[in-house]
Amino acid sequence: MRAVVYRGREKLDITDVPEPPVGHGEVRLRVGVNGICGSDLHEYFAGPIFIPDGRPHPLTGRELPLTLGHEFSGTVVEVGPGVDGVTEGDRVAVMPLYSCGACPACTAGRPNVCAQIGFHGLMADGGMAETTVVPQHMLHLLPDEVSLEMGALVEPMSVAYHAARLGEVGPGSTAVVFGAGPIGIGLWFALRGTGVADVYVVEPSGPRRAAIERLGARTLDPGAVDVPAAVADLTHGRGADAAYDAAGVRAAVETATASVGNGRPTVSVAIYETPIETPLINLVMNESRIQGSLCYTAEDYAAVIALMARGHYDTTGWVERIAMTDVVAEGFEALRAGRRMKVLVDPAIA
Amino acid sequence: MRAVVYRGREKLDITDVPEPPVGHGEVRLRVGVNGICGSDLHEYFAGPIFIPDGRPHPLTGRELPLTLGHEFSGTVVEVGPGVDGVTEGDRVAVMPLYSCGACPACTAGRPNVCAQIGFHGLMADGGMAETTVVPQHMLHLLPDEVSLEMGALVEPMSVAYHAARLGEVGPGSTAVVFGAGPIGIGLWFALRGTGVADVYVVEPSGPRRAAIERLGARTLDPGAVDVPAAVADLTHGRGADAAYDAAGVRAAVETATASVGNGRPTVSVAIYETPIETPLINLVMNESRIQGSLCYTAEDYAAVIALMARGHYDTTGWVERIAMTDVVAEGFEALRAGRRMKVLVDPAIA
Ligand SMILES: [Zn+2]
Ligand SMILES: [Zn+2]
Repeated sequence: MRAVVYRGREKLDITDVPEPPVGHGEVRLRVGVNGICGSDLHEYFAGPIFIPDGRPHPLTGRELPLTLGHEFSGTVVEVGPGVDGVTEGDRVAVMPLYSCGACPACTAGRPNVCAQIGFHGLMADGGMAETTVVPQHMLHLLPDEVSLEMGALVEPMSVAYHAARLGEVGPGSTAVVFGAGPIGIGLWFALRGTGVADVYVVEPSGPRRAAIERLGARTLDPGAVDVPAAVADLTHGRGADAAYDAAGVRAAVETATASVGNGRPTVSVAIYETPIETPLINLVMNESRIQGSLCYTAEDYAAVIALMARGHYDTTGWVERIAMTDVVAEGFEALRAGRRMKVLVDPAIA
Repeated sequence: MRAVVYRGREKLDITDVPEPPVGHGEVRLRVGVNGICGSDLHEYFAGPIFIPDGRPHPLTGRELPLTLGHEFSGTVVEVGPGVDGVTEGDRVAVMPLYSCGACPACTAGRPNVCAQIGFHGLMADGGMAETTVVPQHMLHLLPDEVSLEMGALVEPMSVAYHAARLGEVGPGSTAVVFGAGPIGIGLWFALRGTGVADVYVVEPSGPRRAAIERLGARTLDPGAVDVPAAVADLTHGRGADAAYDAAGVRAAVETATASVGNGRPTVSVAIYETPIETPLINLVMNESRIQGSLCYTAEDYAAVIALMARGHYDTTGWVERIAMTDVVAEGFEALRAGRRMKVLVDPAIA
């Protein structure tokens, strides 16, 4: 079968690989579509970072070369021994986490911060292929109302949903999201989906503001407005009930911590490559906090799929499909250049 | 009466000033002793910072020149009209906060982060004087077991106690305190006083480690040990249940966020003069947080005074008294040089 195989920095083969066998407790999926994630870009342009190189991952036993892709949906085409309640033809989203089950995080019910965390598509052959083999526990059944395209977005939308929850907001709250990339868009949908009416998205890029405005969002241009002052006005001096950094840059951290109300969180849902100059005095002066957010839990997956089944998520204007052969030029390169926002690799496109 | 009057940066007069009248709802105190705070040092060497200069404070109507001193105890010598339940001779600690009562913080019951917060001793004439006049709501009666010297320490010890509470720890928890200055010492006493048996104090200075060890603390020398690895060992891989930054420097923030367990707080109780390069990725990877802490509430004062009445706090080896006339050389200069750790100005020393 065809697969996108990572061999190292800027070394990607679109090539034929043998289909792996289906082991005990596993199923084979025909991949629907597979999204390209920011972390895939990091692996391609600056990696290997998370992909094991020279030392197999303790949970999967694998290292590069590996098939990329951890944001995917698929249809069950083969059910291995020891798998219950899964039938050929089932349409699923995949929660691509491997966790050890034994570390302090796992025993505390927080597998998303497992000390040995692994990802299907970074530490095992992933979804940028015609088929992939996953353990049953990763499967989340998609209802009829949710397409395979939408199903591939469950993973990034769950990253955002999980972060949204850590903001501890609800009806009556005001939230401010920094960054209108895919996670920022996901935060907007998640917050609206949990009843937060007043969500403002701060984004310096005009095209990105326009894209999220077409989805219905209200935006603030940090090049034109004093964001903390605007948020203070909008909240009668209270400040935001939650701020979210989905941009991962100094200006966002600085402005978010200056916009959030007393005792409230700035949720960090970004991969910071280096330490950022952070005005910790902002946290002290109003007893606010910066709260990190990583991945998702099965509850986040279920909540996102339920919202999708109600038609809550809209992919208009920010999601595009490409062929596997175009993954570098129209995927990685286009995303890095900002020419596209979210790209799904579709193995069915020739 | 004699007072230490601040007129601007490095301009301090030890001089005679008229005794102010006692207004409605106010009492006059004969000052017991008055501690010099880190913020006083900032005002002296780099200010005016908090002290109003050219624009009177909205709650007190005052600007410089002002008598310094916000960490003090005293004895009631005159009771103004409209004051109930206070008698001449009462020994008190003073909670020196002015709050507006109307801002979102105040109406949410968080006067310590009032938008217009003021301090007696920074925005009104304070305790580095023979007497001072304070509103009744600032008074906390001292039980017989608590000396006036101890009473002057209620303020800084309450700063630490309040921060300790924001760590959300208790019996069975492990806490790590960065910095063994007065607030670090206060954190150690507060944590021990609330039942946290395992407290480790991280301090690079040998004399400061020795001082807190003599009080009974266990310490870690960050120049000799890999602190996050040591904390991981001490907690069976779990990480600290709370870390506290009472040092306010990059190394402490970096090491604290690398030592704290998943989902747990690093409490910031320091005045950061500039933004600090902060490894926010540490927060993301284990969903920990940095939580700011400012001042205290009346509950913190009550808790600290109760612990003091039980003999919990020990001033041996870190608290010294000086005369008002020595405030610059033996106070500000000695503290800046690290020759003293905590200095109390005693108006009774000639
Ligand atoms: Zn684990
Ligand atoms: Zn207020």
